[in-house]
Formats: sequence, C-alpha cells, structure tokens
Amino acid sequence: MFFHRQELQHQAKPDKPDAVYARKLQEVLGGQYGEITVAMQYGFQSWNTHLPGKYRDLLFGIGAEEFGHVEMLATMIAQLLEKAPVGAVEGAVQDDPTVAAVVGGTDPQQAIVAGAGARPVDSNGNPWSAGYVTASGNLLADFTANANAEMQGRLQVARLYHMTDDPGVRDLLSFLLARDTMHQNQWIAAAQELRDEGVEELPVPSTFPLGKEDRDVAYQYINFSDGEQASQGSWASGPTPDGKGEFEYVAEPPAGVPMPPPTKPDERLHGTAPGPTGLKKAAGTVKDALHKG
Amino acid sequence: MFFHRQELQHQAKPDKPDAVYARKLQEVLGGQYGEITVAMQYGFQSWNTHLPGKYRDLLFGIGAEEFGHVEMLATMIAQLLEKAPVGAVEGAVQDDPTVAAVVGGTDPQQAIVAGAGARPVDSNGNPWSAGYVTASGNLLADFTANANAEMQGRLQVARLYHMTDDPGVRDLLSFLLARDTMHQNQWIAAAQELRDEGVEELPVPSTFPLGKEDRDVAYQYINFSDGEQASQGSWASGPTPDGKGEFEYVAEPPAGVPMPPPTKPDERLHGTAPGPTGLKKAAGTVKDALHKG
Amino acid sequence: MFFHRQELQHQAKPDKPDAVYARKLQEVLGGQYGEITVAMQYGFQSWNTHLPGKYRDLLFGIGAEEFGHVEMLATMIAQLLEKAPVGAVEGAVQDDPTVAAVVGGTDPQQAIVAGAGARPVDSNGNPWSAGYVTASGNLLADFTANANAEMQGRLQVARLYHMTDDPGVRDLLSFLLARDTMHQNQWIAAAQELRDEGVEELPVPSTFPLGKEDRDVAYQYINFSDGEQASQGSWASGPTPDGKGEFEYVAEPPAGVPMPPPTKPDERLHGTAPGPTGLKKAAGTVKDALHKG
Amino acid sequence: MFFHRQELQHQAKPDKPDAVYARKLQEVLGGQYGEITVAMQYGFQSWNTHLPGKYRDLLFGIGAEEFGHVEMLATMIAQLLEKAPVGAVEGAVQDDPTVAAVVGGTDPQQAIVAGAGARPVDSNGNPWSAGYVTASGNLLADFTANANAEMQGRLQVARLYHMTDDPGVRDLLSFLLARDTMHQNQWIAAAQELRDEGVEELPVPSTFPLGKEDRDVAYQYINFSDGEQASQGSWASGPTPDGKGEFEYVAEPPAGVPMPPPTKPDERLHGTAPGPTGLKKAAGTVKDALHKG
Amino acid sequence: MFFHRQELQHQAKPDKPDAVYARKLQEVLGGQYGEITVAMQYGFQSWNTHLPGKYRDLLFGIGAEEFGHVEMLATMIAQLLEKAPVGAVEGAVQDDPTVAAVVGGTDPQQAIVAGAGARPVDSNGNPWSAGYVTASGNLLADFTANANAEMQGRLQVARLYHMTDDPGVRDLLSFLLARDTMHQNQWIAAAQELRDEGVEELPVPSTFPLGKEDRDVAYQYINFSDGEQASQGSWASGPTPDGKGEFEYVAEPPAGVPMPPPTKPDERLHGTAPGPTGLKKAAGTVKDALHKG
Amino acid sequence: MFFHRQELQHQAKPDKPDAVYARKLQEVLGGQYGEITVAMQYGFQSWNTHLPGKYRDLLFGIGAEEFGHVEMLATMIAQLLEKAPVGAVEGAVQDDPTVAAVVGGTDPQQAIVAGAGARPVDSNGNPWSAGYVTASGNLLADFTANANAEMQGRLQVARLYHMTDDPGVRDLLSFLLARDTMHQNQWIAAAQELRDEGVEELPVPSTFPLGKEDRDVAYQYINFSDGEQASQGSWASGPTPDGKGEFEYVAEPPAGVPMPPPTKPDERLHGTAPGPTGLKKAAGTVKDALHKG
Repeated sequence: MFFHRQELQHQAKPDKPDAVYARKLQEVLGGQYGEITVAMQYGFQSWNTHLPGKYRDLLFGIGAEEFGHVEMLATMIAQLLEKAPVGAVEGAVQDDPTVAAVVGGTDPQQAIVAGAGARPVDSNGNPWSAGYVTASGNLLADFTANANAEMQGRLQVARLYHMTDDPGVRDLLSFLLARDTMHQNQWIAAAQELRDEGVEELPVPSTFPLGKEDRDVAYQYINFSDGEQASQGSWASGPTPDGKGEFEYVAEPPAGVPMPPPTKPDERLHGTAPGPTGLKKAAGTVKDALHKG
Repeated sequence: MFFHRQELQHQAKPDKPDAVYARKLQEVLGGQYGEITVAMQYGFQSWNTHLPGKYRDLLFGIGAEEFGHVEMLATMIAQLLEKAPVGAVEGAVQDDPTVAAVVGGTDPQQAIVAGAGARPVDSNGNPWSAGYVTASGNLLADFTANANAEMQGRLQVARLYHMTDDPGVRDLLSFLLARDTMHQNQWIAAAQELRDEGVEELPVPSTFPLGKEDRDVAYQYINFSDGEQASQGSWASGPTPDGKGEFEYVAEPPAGVPMPPPTKPDERLHGTAPGPTGLKKAAGTVKDALHKG
Repeated sequence: MFFHRQELQHQAKPDKPDAVYARKLQEVLGGQYGEITVAMQYGFQSWNTHLPGKYRDLLFGIGAEEFGHVEMLATMIAQLLEKAPVGAVEGAVQDDPTVAAVVGGTDPQQAIVAGAGARPVDSNGNPWSAGYVTASGNLLADFTANANAEMQGRLQVARLYHMTDDPGVRDLLSFLLARDTMHQNQWIAAAQELRDEGVEELPVPSTFPLGKEDRDVAYQYINFSDGEQASQGSWASGPTPDGKGEFEYVAEPPAGVPMPPPTKPDERLHGTAPGPTGLKKAAGTVKDALHKG
Repeated sequence: MFFHRQELQHQAKPDKPDAVYARKLQEVLGGQYGEITVAMQYGFQSWNTHLPGKYRDLLFGIGAEEFGHVEMLATMIAQLLEKAPVGAVEGAVQDDPTVAAVVGGTDPQQAIVAGAGARPVDSNGNPWSAGYVTASGNLLADFTANANAEMQGRLQVARLYHMTDDPGVRDLLSFLLARDTMHQNQWIAAAQELRDEGVEELPVPSTFPLGKEDRDVAYQYINFSDGEQASQGSWASGPTPDGKGEFEYVAEPPAGVPMPPPTKPDERLHGTAPGPTGLKKAAGTVKDALHKG
Repeated sequence: MFFHRQELQHQAKPDKPDAVYARKLQEVLGGQYGEITVAMQYGFQSWNTHLPGKYRDLLFGIGAEEFGHVEMLATMIAQLLEKAPVGAVEGAVQDDPTVAAVVGGTDPQQAIVAGAGARPVDSNGNPWSAGYVTASGNLLADFTANANAEMQGRLQVARLYHMTDDPGVRDLLSFLLARDTMHQNQWIAAAQELRDEGVEELPVPSTFPLGKEDRDVAYQYINFSDGEQASQGSWASGPTPDGKGEFEYVAEPPAGVPMPPPTKPDERLHGTAPGPTGLKKAAGTVKDALHKG
Repeated sequence: MFFHRQELQHQAKPDKPDAVYARKLQEVLGGQYGEITVAMQYGFQSWNTHLPGKYRDLLFGIGAEEFGHVEMLATMIAQLLEKAPVGAVEGAVQDDPTVAAVVGGTDPQQAIVAGAGARPVDSNGNPWSAGYVTASGNLLADFTANANAEMQGRLQVARLYHMTDDPGVRDLLSFLLARDTMHQNQWIAAAQELRDEGVEELPVPSTFPLGKEDRDVAYQYINFSDGEQASQGSWASGPTPDGKGEFEYVAEPPAGVPMPPPTKPDERLHGTAPGPTGLKKAAGTVKDALHKG
C-alpha cells in the first residue's frame, strides 16, 4: 500500500518561469532514465522478487521515494510553465525574435494538451514507455541495471544543471544529484553483497551449469574490427572478474561455418522460391499444392 | 565500414522445426535485451565516444560480432519455422488439439507477414525500438549499461535453453551463453579499468563538482517503507563504494516542505482555476482577458 | 511524498496457479485502462491542477490507492505464474496437447524476461504507454475522462471475473469491482459538483466566449450516413444539456465549399508539381531556382 | 461504404502561411484527442455495436463527419506550410534570429518527410497510435469516452485559437469549436438516454450482478493522502449517482492484510532465491534440478 | 467530405465463428500493410498533393474505397468472434485441450477490451501506428510506395486464404485479392504514366540537379559481401533504368578514408574524454571550466 | 558474419558545427526511411530468402554497405554537435535571440541524453522502430519496397541538401545521393529481372491461383469520389501491366449489400445489447446466464 502526504521531500520552486527549460526538465521526469522509470522499476522488482528480507526491503524502501521525485519534478515543471507566452497574438509577438525563439524551444503539448502542466513524456515529447523497465527476477542482473539507471540519471541531471542559472531550479537539482550519488553507491554495494554472500555470482545467472555452455569461447576477446589497442586492456589477458577463467585475446575471428541453405517453407506462403528446374517456377507443381487449400 | 562474409560464427541449425519455439527465440533477437540492442548500442557508443584508443577499439571490436549474432538467430528462426503448419485447412486440423495448440503458441506474423521468416520483434511481437539503446558519451555509465545488458541477455538465453531439448538449438545457445559470459566479464573489467586509470570515477559523472550537490543527503539510505531489514545491508553503514563518504541509515523520512501553491497560468489556457471570490468563477474578468485574443 | 507499507489493501492470493490467466490479468494492470493508467492519471492531474482544496485533495486521496492496486495485481500475477511449466522439455511435454495448449496461451515474456513475474504490459504484451494518460488542467474534462476510465476498467474486470473460477482470484476481483463502482460514482458526482458550483460548465471549456464559435452549427446533428433512426434520439431535438440551445436534426449535410487549390511549396522540396505549361515540368525554371542552393 | 466528395464542410484557408502554427495544429489532427482519434473511435464503436437502431445510426452518422474534419485540418496545414523557409541557405538566414526562431519552432518532418505537407502525427511529431481508441462494446462506457474526447478536443482547439490571429485559421477553429459543442452535448444526451431507457445503468457494466462485488467498500471514499477537504464533497456523503447506495467518508485506510510470501517459481528460471539453509545457495540442489534439462 | 452508406461493397459473413482466425485477420485490418494503412496513406497523399487533375482524382477515388474495406474486415471479425468461449469456467473447460488450445490462439484483448469486437491492431495486438504511412509530396516515390503496399497486402491476404476453409471468409478474401490485383496494376500504371508524361523521372527526385551528386559512384554495384553471383544480374552491367548511365560491378569496396578524430564537446556535458596528459583526467582544468556554471 | 574496419566509405566532416542541422540530419539516420531502416531491411530479407544465388548475394552485398552509412551519418552528426551551446548560462545567453533560436531548433536529447552525440531516432526524436522494416519472403514485393525506400531516402537527402550550405556536409550528401541513385536503379532492375526470368510475376503473389480471386472486379477502377479526371489515366482503360486483363472505368460504385445484423456475443462480456422485448434489458434473463459464472 502507498500513502501520500501533501509535502515535498525537498523544496521545488524556481525563482522565475522558464518554459524552454520546462521542456528540457521533462527528460528526467519521463525519459528513458527519468524518475518514472526508476519508480516503476524498483516497484516491479520488489513485487517479483523471490527473496524476503533485506534486499526486498531495500527495493520497497527506495521505490516510494522515487514516486515522490516524480511529484517534485512535475511540480517544478508546472511552475516553470506558469508565465509561458500563449502564442503569437496581442501584437507583434510573432515578429519579436526573442519571444519567437522561446516559443520555438518549448514543448507545444505542455500548453495545448496540459494547459501549462507537466506531462509523462521526455524532452522530445515521447510518451514514457514501460519498455524502459527492467525486472528480471535475478537480483544481481537487476541491481546492475539499477546502478546503470542511477548513473545515467545523475549524468542527465548534471547536464541539466549547466543549462540553467535559476537558483531555485539548481537547488532542486543539487538535491537530486545527491540522491543519485547515494543510489549509485547503494546498488553497487548491494550487488557486491549478493556476491559476497554467495546469493548470486558471476556470470549471471550463476545457477546455470557452466558445463552446458561452450567454455572454449567463454573468455575470448574476439576482435571483429581492425583496431589493435583493445589488446592492451584488462579484458584481453589476466584473470576474469568471475574468478573462473583467464582472458584471451583473439586478434581476428576464426573461420566460420557455412550458412545453412535457404529454407523451403510451405508453398502456400507464396515466398519466392526456386522451382524444380533451376530458377524457373514449376507453376504446375505449385498449383497442385495450392489447389488443396 | 562493415563487411559481410557468408559464414556464421557458429553452427545454427535445429534438428527439427519447432514453430512455437521460433516465437520464443525472437526475444533474444529483437527484444529489449536481444542481439539487435547490443549491436546498435555498441555501435552508437563507438561513434559517440570522445576517447580514441583501447576503449573505442573495444567497442568497435565487439559491435560487429553482435550484428553477426543477429544473423545467426535470424537464420535459426527461419529454419525452426520451415515446416510450420499453415493453418486450419486440409481436414480436421482445427479440431486436432495438438495442432491447434501449436498454432496457438506461434507468432502469426512470422507466417502472415514474413512467410515463415524471422522478424525484428520480441517474443510478443513488439517491434524492436531504439528506445532500448543507451549511449550517453560517459563510458563508466555506458559500460555499466553494457554489463547489465549482457547479464539480462545471458539470463534470457539460459531460460530459453530449458524450453527446448533440440540438440541443434541447444548447441547454438551454448555458444551464445559463453559469449555472454565473456561479455559480462569484459564490461566489468573495462568499467574497473576506467576507474583504476582515473579516467572516470564514482559517482558518475565524476567531473561534476561534488560541492555543488547537496552533500547532506548524498549517503543516506532513507527508508520510505516499513520494513526494517534494509538497515542490515552494506548500503546502510560503512564506507561507500565511491570512497568519498559513509553510509547512514535513516529509519524514516524527515518532515518535508509544504507543496508550493497551485500554479495560475494564462487564463486563455482555460484550466480550471479559482475566481477572485473563492471558487466562483469571475466570469467577467475572464472574459475581459479573453476578448483580447 | 509517497510512503509504502508492506501490506495489501485486500487479500490477493489465488487458490492455484494459472499461467494462462496470469496473461489475461495483465490487461487491468498494464493496459490502456489498467491500474497504472489511473494511478498516473490522478497523479498528473493533481500536480497540474490550479485549484487548491477539495478537488485537489480528492485527486491526491485516490491516486495513492491506485498505486496500491498496481501492487496487488502484480503480486497476484506473480503467484498465478508460480508453477508455470517452463517449456517443452523433460519428456513429451510438447506432445501433450493440454500442456502445449497452456503454453500457447501464456505470455512468453512473463517467463523469459521476468522469470515468472508480472510486467508493466497489457494482455498482448504491449508495454504500458504514457500516451494513455489524460491531464489537461480542465477539471470537468478530466473528471469525465476519469469516469470513463473507471467504467472501462470495471467492465474489463467484470469480463475477467467470468474467465476464472478460482475463488482467490474472484475474491480480489470482487474487491476491485466494488472500488470501481465507487470511483465511477465519485467522478460523476465530482463532475456534477463542478457544474453546480459554477466552477466549470458545459460546453468545456466554459470560459471560451461562445460568441467566438460558429453558433449556427453548435447544436445541429448533421447526418453523414443513411440511417434515419438517429432522428429519434434526445440529441436530435429538445433542449441541450448545456442549457444554452436546442438540438436540431439535419437529415443530410448541406453543400460544402470547394476545396482550396493544391499548394505550391518551395521547389527545393521536390514535390511533384505542375510546370508553367500544363503538366510538363519546366525543367529550366526549376533548375534556375535549384542552382541557388 | 464511404464516399468522398471534393468539397469541404467549411472553408479552410489561412490568410497567410505560418509554419510554426502548422506544427501546433497537428495536435488536433493527429494527437491523442485529434480528429483521427474520434473518426476511428466512432467507426470501431459502430462496427462492434450489438444494438441496431438509433444508437448505431448515431455512431455511423457522426463518424463520417469526423473523417471530413481530418481532411479539413490536413488541407489547412498544407496551406500554412506553403511558404515555409527551406532552411539556412541563400545568405545569412541562419544568422537572422527571426528566421532561425521560426525554423526552430517548426516540425522538421513536415518539410523533410512530407515536402510541406500535413502528417498523421501530433504537435511533437509522435505518430498517431490506435492505442488512443476506445470501443468496448458497452455503449454507456463508450459514450462517456466520447464525451470526454469531445471535451478534450474542444479545449485544445480553444487553446489553439488564442495562439494565432489569422482570420482564416480562426474561422475554421470557430466552426470546429461549434461542432465540438454539439458533440459534447450529443454524447451526454445519448448517455443519459441509455440510462433513461434502461438499456444501461450505473455502475457500468450494469449487467454484472452487484451481489458478486464486495459491497462493503462499494461506496467508501478512502483517503490515501493527508488532505481533509475531500470530505466536504458530494462524493463523501449522501446518495450515489447510481441510486444504489450512500457515500461514506473513510478518513484513513483501514489496516491492510500482510503481503503473501515471495513466490518460488521453477529454479530453471534462474531467479534469485533463498537456498535451503538461509540465504546461501544450495548449489547442489539447484544443479540437480537443472541437470534434468 | 466523406459520406457513409449502411451497406458493404461485398458480402462479409463467415459461415461459422472462429475466434482464432479472428485474431489472424486483424493483420490485414490493422497491420503495417492493412486496410487502415492504405486508407490513411491515400488520404494524406491526396491532401498533400500539389497537382490538380487525374492523379489527385485517382487518390481521392480509391481512398474512400479503402475506408470501406476497413469496415468490411471489422464487421467480419466481429462475426468471427460471436461465439468465442469466454474462458475457463463452467466445468472443465480449462482441462479440455481443444478449448484450451482455441483460447490460447485468440487475442485476449478482443474479448477483454472490445467485448468480442474488432480492434485497430495487428495479429499480435500491436496498435496501428501512423508510422506506417508514406506521403512525401513526390508522386513517383509515393506511387511506388503504394504499389508495394498493395503487393504486401495481397500477399498477406493470400496467406490468410490458406489458413481457413470457411466459404464465407474465403468469399470476402477472394474479393479483396481481386481489388489488390487491380490496385497493384493501377499504381504501376500511374507511376509509368508520370514518367511517360515527363512529370517525374528516375532517379527520384528528378528535379534535383544530377551535377550536384557524386556521379562517379552513381551506377556502381559495390559488393560488401563475399558472394560473387550478384555480378550476373542486370544491375551489374548494361544500361540503367533511369536511362542516364551504365551499371558497373565493383567486386570489393575501394579503400575508405580514415575516420575523423573523436569529438571534444563542451566539458559540462561530462562525457568521458582524454585529459591534457594522456588518459589521466586533468581534474583541475575540468573543474575550472565547471565552476563557471 | 560482419567485420568492421575503422574507415569510412566517404569523407564525413563538416566545415563547422551546426547543432540545428544535426537534428535535421537525424531523419536520414533514424527515420522511417533512414539508413537504419534499409540496413535492417536488406538484412532480414537476406536471412529470410528461400532462393540461393544472385538475388541473395545482392541483398548481402548491399546490406553491409548500409550499416556503414549509418556509421557515416552518426559520425557526421557528432561533429555537427561539437560546439553546441550547452544552454542558458554564462551571461545573457537566454536573452540573446540568436542563441535562443539555435537552442530552440536543436534536439534536447542529443545534449542531455547523448552528451552531444548521434541517436537512433528521427528528426523529431522518435526512436527508430522495427515497424518500418519490410521482409516478406516474396522478392518481387520486397524489391518494390526497396525501390520505394531508396526513392524516399534520396528525396529526403535532396531536401536536406538545400537546408545547409556547409561544403563538408554537402560533400557527404552528394555521395549519399549518388548511392541512392544507384540503389533505386538497382532494385528496379532486379524487380524486372525477377519478372523476366519468370521467378515472380504480377500480380504478387503470382503463385496464388487467379481462379480463386473474384476476377470480375480484378481490373475495375471504381471511383469513390466525385472527380472525373481519373478516367483519363492509363489505369482506366487499356491493357494492365500484369498482361492478364483490361482496365475498366466504373464511374460510381455499384450498389452494395446490406450490412450483416449486429453480433450477439456471450452476455458475460457485458456489451450493450437489445433485450427480448425491444430495447429494454431483460435483466432476469441476463442474470440467469450470469449466475452460471
């Protein structure tokens, strides 16, 4: 169960409206790595987990915070839009390049669809999609996904920080940056703890018997390009992070195997196919088959 | 530049057709974490990187391999579909529950749209979307994304392994499992190497001045749920992975701040708003404004 | 701010697993009118509203409940999937039509992607999209949208009720049906209250000056088909619900106006256009323009 | 069957081109509540209805009109784009802020993809999606959806009205505003008529036996936030619109029930799970199961 | 303007219901090449065309027919769904493999969402997307797109023909096949007529000055794979269809040019970049820049 | 298998950065007819083809080239973005209309998400979708799709050519224009060769027995609009391109057939339906049915 309190975790109040920035800020609300994504991601991971205890409590404990971040950003965006010019009326607005430029940089749907409100979309107006969410049931994989999400999220907030000089906006971004710092650290620690406790190991999934994979190529870096410097990396020699092998550098791919011959599906699918006598269609044969149904 | 050779990196030939399985295998071809995703992801990361040398060579070196994996899976799927029953004709097929069940489990578009061919979609028929791709220009964030992608991918292949007993299919999956083992290890090693060399650090982005984030909350685990076991994790006390702080456990969220008052945008957006005398609309006032344009 | 408690508002426990039904139940979790939609919709309406007081409290008060419904359904679905057969292995599973049929009716991504978990998708596996959300800033329009959402939602739950005979599932659906009954009634009452208090009126938006619309056609039913029975409805004569006119039935559309002539955009857009001498392209003229840039 | 006549229902001719406005106008052509949505929605409702007579005639009668509105808007948009600047050539265009601002506010696909033509997209360029359409087979639910669609549509047209001062554009919008006034009134009247005739009642679906829903919570407003003013609304006490109960205000949610324990799906799905001896994985056990397949 | 008549162009009545087939038939209603696509495509081409006369009349003349085809298919699908089993209730339905198989093969949304009705989606339930539509303003390109759409459409109908033996369904498909035959022929003839009249030529767009393209590679087949048989095709030697050159076969790609060096964008975007002394970040330098804002 | 070489097929280097143009250029990288589309389309066609030899070699030979074009455009876009202004900081940037206009015309995600990098999206930021790909298994249909794709692609590149005067950008576009000229010619030649060799004929699919289609309407132009000039086209009389008939012009559609009566699905789907005594619901009857389940 979720409960709501009419407060914000942190102040979310711009010093002045800025409709152009309101569009940009949508990215960390409704984008691939925005707050809606992490809120839903931690939710589905918690509901799908098979493990009671501290890991599930962790997912529950942070998920609700992220829904509150959605609320803070939506509230901020609505205020940034408060004095947005409606458009090209009342005089020469269209001809005033400053106003025209501002209008050009705004999200028209924030005005036309939401009446100067926040929307569950990214900075290009793409609606948020649940295709962004990761919740596999394997916690080591998912905590790695979470660490990535918090890294990408903090990176985007940092970029947005430089795109405004509004003290009120920057104050909120400072807060979000810090929470993302925490969450990056937290998921990295949690992923490590899974390994330290032997709950999960590398490679994910660690419960799949290694004997069933093709161990000959399990630690080879095979170079499909013509640059040679990748041979100098720690991924090209030495022990592997999973502790189960040694990296090997293969300078160019070994010979492959011939492709299997083209398929010959049912003629009633009317794909282009060779006839019995070379390329010429054996129309009669086909028709015989086809007359069956 | 990319070059193609009419060979496969590994044999991709089922022992017998299986149209139901052909649908499932679409997941690791065209799903969120399928081969198209990683091929495109490594491509865009390589084209956007600002760093010449071993990291870029690494991205180039693996990207082309993944396009070849797309090809192997597409080839496999086409063969699995080779003898798929076309449908409910030629007698009592519809009434034969075995055949009907098989038909029910197939992807109808593999037959109707592709004529018994592979498609760039997932196992539910959702077209692959570039919304799955991550390429931020920050390599520590992106290598973490890549590690996650390889974990999720190997997990899905492992699940698919148990859903077939076809030796030919399993042979290909064994190969893919091993390559995913390599790639998990590789991205983890590369992410660590970025940190060891001081190219990037935690938290991402490490070039953002920490003094500009709200350090008071940068290492607090704030518990927004009522479970208490998260306090026992390594994310609740002790040093943080970024080496810059100490985790702190906050058992429940501190009081927030009041929400800012509702916004009052331009009346010509016709949002529902209070009038000058409480809730009643001051129709006259509004109309005056509206008659302006 | 949102807070989470590790309880469910109502029991959500099936008597036995049913992987086929787990797929169907996704519709009211992640479909167009599923619980994610109403949770997000009430959230964005509350954050965008310009009106403090009872209407905003209403939106806040119900929004958090709906996030809890998301959680109940996700929990239920995970349990329905608990014993799902993994696939076609361990003997003749593939050849057993009962098992094969069950497999055919399941969502393969619930197994392959989520490891027997719930997903933020509908019953055909389409990821939830924020394109489903409505939050316009006009409360009379939005409360009507909400009434519709609760009607469609209750209708879908009612249909799902007949598709299972599991007492545990039906118990949860009974609860959800009742809450949807409440919410239908509530939004209808709230929409009426907006009108009774004069906060909003019909037609929406009531603050747009009627004198600026083309009043001649504002109450005409114009029949663009050849059925005549629509003339018998209350929408074809008598007073209009907005209290501002009388319905009129127009048996067939009056003559229209000629279409404007085709456009002639810049030749450098290379659209197909008539040349100066009829249809023949005046290549010279075009080229002159083109050589400019 | 549909027939086309080369006329428009109303004049659709701008006084002068305006490429920035052409982008905005896309919203009511190809957006969530644009003309394509209502045209398709009334179409699918008419084809799916189970009821011959006046209600079906109503759906047929208005559906074709809406396809004509699609045509009017597309024609208008093409004309608004007629003189759009192609880009940054022929001198210092890029450096002229007025021109640059205009270019910045346009939809680049209207030029690059459509050659100065209208497109089936919204004002942010999102392609129209059939995910916007509602056609459930239950007419009371669907007529409520239609009333909402016409309200949202008229609201958007009203907002767009203030964003231009072109007399030709405003003339068309005046016409569309009036038709939306009619259609709002019409669907409200039709929904009421369904109830007056006893064809459908509240709550939707009225044919679901009320005894099968959890009547104890069917009329309770349960407050999941901490605002108290919702208690003053007509949805918190008094008779309910469906005529079957009395509203009740519940100031805070009653205690819930414990969440069910985490699920334990098949180990071959490789989710993270507790082992037999606490958190430690019992690798042997798992492997035994796994070796089966 | 569009007008509707309550008739169908051709009988659309199945001999018996078939819910599994109802799902498949969705492909040619709401799929990439279904009737909605061609109806909307011809519509937008007609509204965007710059050429009055026979070509525009052709687009208008066929567009409305296609909307009628949408109606015929929707009507057919609703009838195919008329007796669909609701689900797993009333006894042992779930355990009857025949019924279970049928349920497995159906589209659950046709029941849950549409109440046994047609939906604007494809056979995998993907909502129709305007991303399928092509309308460029260049008629030679667009008529080629139309010819392709009619080919793909007829191919899919032909495949569907073999998937049923219902005489009523086949009767409708026979009609649709014939209309697709006509439309294929028609668009090929119209494309040729554009060329014969000199309105457009190859290559599209023919008004772009050939002198501005890199003529050296304008007729080279460059072989990026290792198969050699493409050298035998008419595209490898001899005159080109545009009448302006000779095909040339290039057995393998000539040497390329070095890739440009990696980019160095603003440091405030926090991409991973080399520092002044090799790979080591010059933290000081970065911070100086960053402290500016 | 695919191999990568760190070279570009042609120089891709702008003379100067231009962030506004970088957005526009996304169209031919990640749009409906961008390079990702053709690369993936030729790939899936080659993997699905049933025909060994020159046609398959052709598909393999060109597919890899197109992946290289993706790389060239991504590289170009990253360079165009190299000096993009980060935003509204460091003084009066927001108030400088020139800078503001530039910012307004850029893709905010190129900065916020990709750090001044290319993205797999179109010029409006829509992520590339595999819904753009065509690969049916029928080569005559697919080569026609390919010819269209190359026409639309060249048209878009030509339009983009006029939107910049940067010599470096134009140099690359000249190269791409020439390759599109080749590929248009190539697919037209290949489609013709299929017909000349009798591998495929018109109408597609040529293996479907013509006797099973409704030949009476297979060559009729039926005019559903009121323009008469389409009667003058080569599609209205004379021999048909498939060589199997004569075009016929039908000035207006013949009378249709009555629509089938509305469907009566299972009452448990709760659609609105007529009761036994006209419109009134026979509540008792319904409830009897409903009490069954």
